[in-house]
Amino acid sequence: MLVRRSDAAGRVPDAVVVEEPMEIRLDGHLVTTTMRTPGNDYELAAGLCLTDGLLAGAPVTGVRYCATGSAADTGFNVVTVETGGRAPEPVARLSPTSSSCGLCGTASLDALRRRLEPLAAMTAPPLGASASVPARVRPAQALFDATGGSHAAAAFDATGEPLVVREDIGRHNAVDKVVGRLLLDGRLPATGLGLFVSGRASFEIVQKAWAAGFAAVVAVSAPSSLAVETALAAGLTLAGFARDGRLTQYAPA
Amino acid sequence: MLVRRSDAAGRVPDAVVVEEPMEIRLDGHLVTTTMRTPGNDYELAAGLCLTDGLLAGAPVTGVRYCATGSAADTGFNVVTVETGGRAPEPVARLSPTSSSCGLCGTASLDALRRRLEPLAAMTAPPLGASASVPARVRPAQALFDATGGSHAAAAFDATGEPLVVREDIGRHNAVDKVVGRLLLDGRLPATGLGLFVSGRASFEIVQKAWAAGFAAVVAVSAPSSLAVETALAAGLTLAGFARDGRLTQYAPA
Repeated sequence: MLVRRSDAAGRVPDAVVVEEPMEIRLDGHLVTTTMRTPGNDYELAAGLCLTDGLLAGAPVTGVRYCATGSAADTGFNVVTVETGGRAPEPVARLSPTSSSCGLCGTASLDALRRRLEPLAAMTAPPLGASASVPARVRPAQALFDATGGSHAAAAFDATGEPLVVREDIGRHNAVDKVVGRLLLDGRLPATGLGLFVSGRASFEIVQKAWAAGFAAVVAVSAPSSLAVETALAAGLTLAGFARDGRLTQYAPA
Repeated sequence: MLVRRSDAAGRVPDAVVVEEPMEIRLDGHLVTTTMRTPGNDYELAAGLCLTDGLLAGAPVTGVRYCATGSAADTGFNVVTVETGGRAPEPVARLSPTSSSCGLCGTASLDALRRRLEPLAAMTAPPLGASASVPARVRPAQALFDATGGSHAAAAFDATGEPLVVREDIGRHNAVDKVVGRLLLDGRLPATGLGLFVSGRASFEIVQKAWAAGFAAVVAVSAPSSLAVETALAAGLTLAGFARDGRLTQYAPA
């Protein structure tokens, strides 16, 4: 598209990151609609169903676009994850809600604890290797180079080597795409691997990492209080401000 | 809390941004639960009800914490917006969903168009004034200074003067807090004012600005494709990459 820059005359070409809604279904039942950057849609759908706890251990037997299942169809923005009915019927995807007046981060964390086991004792990627990840993911951020408007997530191994890198306008979508790729490749739980995110580490990001079995979360920006508490409960290593070869470790204490 | 830095020995003190769930109700009906940074909770609740189109023109007659309505109560994280039943009962707050296979950004935009009128022709703050906003909001970002983990939003006037500045771990929450403040002060629609956001401009941010009647959205980072389309449909000025006294204008073309 053509845009106007305050320090230039006339209009100049520019690229903007694409944002389109995608509806995700599980065995035909509506799960949610998310605003995402098109591409790797099957990974996103499968990953979200896993990280939201909707699969409940059921194996994914297929992922397809709505109707004919063909990418040549018109239903590009509706994706169904199939488990042959083995996953429970999804309930409306809202954050934990209270029936009384009380509601707090501890309750959210307790709800997670009921769903997820603490991770077995395992070795997280060493901090030195983790600190090298941002610079090693950066060359793969082609969408960011073009638009400046996308987040990246990556799975990396104990040497800091990125194994899967995905970009999306939404941080949580980028994470779900990475998790979905590992799921479809039969590589979950992600024992011993780290999850890198190019932005901040919120409760939701750590929750997703926990659900996928990652040993560590490494974020370029800040973690939240509830993200730290969740990492401590999960037995996850959590590092933030991973920049210029340095990082800050928030969990374990 | 005490953290470990990869370039320092021992543990050093650090502050992390607080993230806690807050449940929002409208006349007692559940609207949603959002992860937010506590503070300005009434503004957040009222603002979200407005920007999500839930008030449908009904005036807000009160906002209170659950039960006793006292901040000394235990129900700090449940807030009810009151309209005396004049607002319609909220439906489950999910993004637009399709009943068939088709779903696309145009449909999301069409849904907005049915809800919101194009903004009347009005004068947006001049680009030069808009470009000065980031530097003028920055001194008010105390939470960001302390934690590095929060976004800011601000309403600003035709001279680029910030009128209301709010911070939150969520971009959309920061915007809702600004809108809520204007709403509770009887200053909506925000005709002639600009909305500043310290991050990117997504569809959701532009939708909220449109609902509140802002003349412009100015973002520090990139806009999305659907944000640009929405701004064009609304008659909003949309600028991104507002940094170092410069910006790029995406809408109007």
